[in-house]
Amino acid sequence: MKKIINKPENFIPEMLEGIYAAHPHDVTYVNDDLHCLVTQHKVAGKVGISTGGGSGHLPLFLGYVGKGMLDGCAIGDVFQSPSAEQMFEITKAIDAGAGVLYIYGNYNGDIFNFDMAAEMADFEADIRVESVVAGDDVASAAAVNAGQKNTRRGVAGIFFVYKCAGAAAAEMMDLDNVKRIALKACQNVRTMGVGLSPCIVPRVGKPGFSIAEDEMEIGMGIHGETGIRRGKLLSADEIVNEILPQILDDIPYQSGDEVAVLINGLGGTPLEEQYVVYRRVQQILQAENIKVCHTYVGEYATAMEMSGLSISVLKVDDELKRLLKAQADTPFFKQFQL
Amino acid sequence: MKKIINKPENFIPEMLEGIYAAHPHDVTYVNDDLHCLVTQHKVAGKVGISTGGGSGHLPLFLGYVGKGMLDGCAIGDVFQSPSAEQMFEITKAIDAGAGVLYIYGNYNGDIFNFDMAAEMADFEADIRVESVVAGDDVASAAAVNAGQKNTRRGVAGIFFVYKCAGAAAAEMMDLDNVKRIALKACQNVRTMGVGLSPCIVPRVGKPGFSIAEDEMEIGMGIHGETGIRRGKLLSADEIVNEILPQILDDIPYQSGDEVAVLINGLGGTPLEEQYVVYRRVQQILQAENIKVCHTYVGEYATAMEMSGLSISVLKVDDELKRLLKAQADTPFFKQFQL
Repeated sequence: MKKIINKPENFIPEMLEGIYAAHPHDVTYVNDDLHCLVTQHKVAGKVGISTGGGSGHLPLFLGYVGKGMLDGCAIGDVFQSPSAEQMFEITKAIDAGAGVLYIYGNYNGDIFNFDMAAEMADFEADIRVESVVAGDDVASAAAVNAGQKNTRRGVAGIFFVYKCAGAAAAEMMDLDNVKRIALKACQNVRTMGVGLSPCIVPRVGKPGFSIAEDEMEIGMGIHGETGIRRGKLLSADEIVNEILPQILDDIPYQSGDEVAVLINGLGGTPLEEQYVVYRRVQQILQAENIKVCHTYVGEYATAMEMSGLSISVLKVDDELKRLLKAQADTPFFKQFQL
Repeated sequence: MKKIINKPENFIPEMLEGIYAAHPHDVTYVNDDLHCLVTQHKVAGKVGISTGGGSGHLPLFLGYVGKGMLDGCAIGDVFQSPSAEQMFEITKAIDAGAGVLYIYGNYNGDIFNFDMAAEMADFEADIRVESVVAGDDVASAAAVNAGQKNTRRGVAGIFFVYKCAGAAAAEMMDLDNVKRIALKACQNVRTMGVGLSPCIVPRVGKPGFSIAEDEMEIGMGIHGETGIRRGKLLSADEIVNEILPQILDDIPYQSGDEVAVLINGLGGTPLEEQYVVYRRVQQILQAENIKVCHTYVGEYATAMEMSGLSISVLKVDDELKRLLKAQADTPFFKQFQL
């Protein structure tokens, strides 16, 4: 295990100490618990937005707490859900009189704990909480249809949900409308990735799976979950040719649509390679007459040192586009008004 | 070689096509040459700042072209200098009537070509050009003293030189003053790193060096240049305990000083580990009574998929601090006024 860490059991608390030390004007924690991160920029009367999940995915999840995005984040150990109590403490801290929206990825532990936290907020603190569960990974399960349970994993596309809902809350929309926006972003974003190498959970000390030096896995999840197929490593263009049509067929995205694109590095894949991939993505979108309103390239949702990347496409209407283009300022994501 | 690329010889041109496709409102190229990148936000009467160097270090070098930072960048193949002709074409394109400053790292090929480009600018285009060569790597050579040739490599600390000089130019300082600021930043920044794994130049197809699974190299350069010593992998705290005092002793930094810090990931090292490292950096600086005015953590100067990181410390006075805190907006680095 080749990592720059101290004792594995201290990995996440020490990472958090580093984060609070580096960004003292932006984030702090409540309840004397480093894992209960909240913004330093609380706005009276604004809907509070909280997220949470296991560690090991920086900048996901805590990196998006800041102006124009989220207000709090419950932080678990590596790949483990934080507790309902931690979520509840954050909920109390960020409620500014307009209620709180939970946005998180579709994982059983998170669902269980966020649901319990929402009940605690209702019964013990009289705070109205609504929840939106992001499940954007085309690879991971059956299709999402109206009224059906979404069995898909939440992956990098949750960034778009944070961005649009965060901007909606910053516009002082009420809780129903911020939830409506988050749901609309969820319904219009799809992601698929490719994994090339595993990562090591420090406490475990060995890779979660093995993959041959000449292999890749299409559709791998951000914890190394099994994807759609494993095969010989293809070229960048061939990978995009295989992944992107599966994304586009899913909603489906159609000629004349406008989209935002996120090329997300999983941690170990250089930015150079992510741009080689975007080149092919744009060629295909152009050929399909799908217009790109904005492109993000970089590490937005990682799996520590895992190699690989994902492609997310968000279909926008005028409202989502306006919210996407709004200013945001967090320790990890900054955007001037576009 | 496990990379998401197409033909190795097309790696950099295809990466550049991806960059221009992703950031059409921010950057473009001149002379029909993808390797001659210039800003879309030229400001009349402002000193132009150009940089350049080999590829494989994103966001270095081209990622810092944008508002409040640089105006142009000559882009070489992986780890290879761009040509004097390319630098000259950029110089002509970005000159806005106030002359041009070259800021680049201390590598022989770059020095040779930038010097030739400056002569061409003088003789063929009557553009005044000044140059500042960054050499911040404490590990790489003998001390820098007044009047002595700096034999140190330029590494991640060049980010601070770009930031301060870019803000000075944005304030409409003249060429002499922008150069003065760049020199002051160079004289006050020091960096040292640690490498854990090699990277592969696509055209070469195999690692530039080998290092055992339980080893690290203190002081390794961003092309894998030999450092100060190779030994067993230490803990995060032990690595900082070894590196940081060598940085602090160098200028030296003293009790009561104020500094900015950059923890830079080399490409393959997760952000989580970088924060564990910053935690220890801050503890030591606090114990030394050195105040941190701002902290940057992330990938600022990489070596593709290389694992490892570097620590840079910039000693600031009121002028450098003002310039550091100014707004900047490039495709890869955004900062609201601090």
